Amino acid sequence: MQHKHVHYTEVAREPVEGEGANGVGVRWVIAAADGAKNFAMRIFDVAPGGNTPYHEHAWEHEVYILEGSGTLTVDGREEPLAPAEVVFVPGGLMHNFTAGPGGLKFICLVPY
Amino acid sequence: MQHKHVHYTEVAREPVEGEGANGVGVRWVIAAADGAKNFAMRIFDVAPGGNTPYHEHAWEHEVYILEGSGTLTVDGREEPLAPAEVVFVPGGLMHNFTAGPGGLKFICLVPY
Repeated sequence: MQHKHVHYTEVAREPVEGEGANGVGVRWVIAAADGAKNFAMRIFDVAPGGNTPYHEHAWEHEVYILEGSGTLTVDGREEPLAPAEVVFVPGGLMHNFTAGPGGLKFICLVPY
Repeated sequence: MQHKHVHYTEVAREPVEGEGANGVGVRWVIAAADGAKNFAMRIFDVAPGGNTPYHEHAWEHEVYILEGSGTLTVDGREEPLAPAEVVFVPGGLMHNFTAGPGGLKFICLVPY
């Protein structure tokens, strides 16, 4: 199998259109098509004031904040977000990410 | 299960002491103790001119370059590394990361 080495902007940005998503885009930078069988790497951008859906699901998130600021809401509690912070959201907890006035960019990994 | 939200520097840095590692530190920022069952997030720092071991193993790496510069060697081929680049190294390929004159910092995820 081949390795993959790209700048993240070489991977197409897809708008996230689902219910509850506002101003969100995602790039699946390492995914099944690359040979990743266990987990996938996505990079999200959230426009100023935008947010990911407030929802829950069975799988976990492993997140690293790259740029910007915002708010993490988990199980009804709000926490400010800043670059170089790490977030683990286990399955089964309501959660979302809201961008501050400068937008928010983060890595989010999920299992297959 | 609780979520985890920390600045990455709140997680202790451990020197990587194995054969072939030079000037490398690692922080296991999301790991089994946090409830991560499928994959772990580590943040590596490599001192200027340092390098991770040139080796192979059965599991994959999913990498995001945070800071600095360096060289990725995969299967004998060298490629320059820069921030915001993504690297997928499938299992079974010889690989390492060498830091340039300003050092190198990257996220590297592995499956459990």
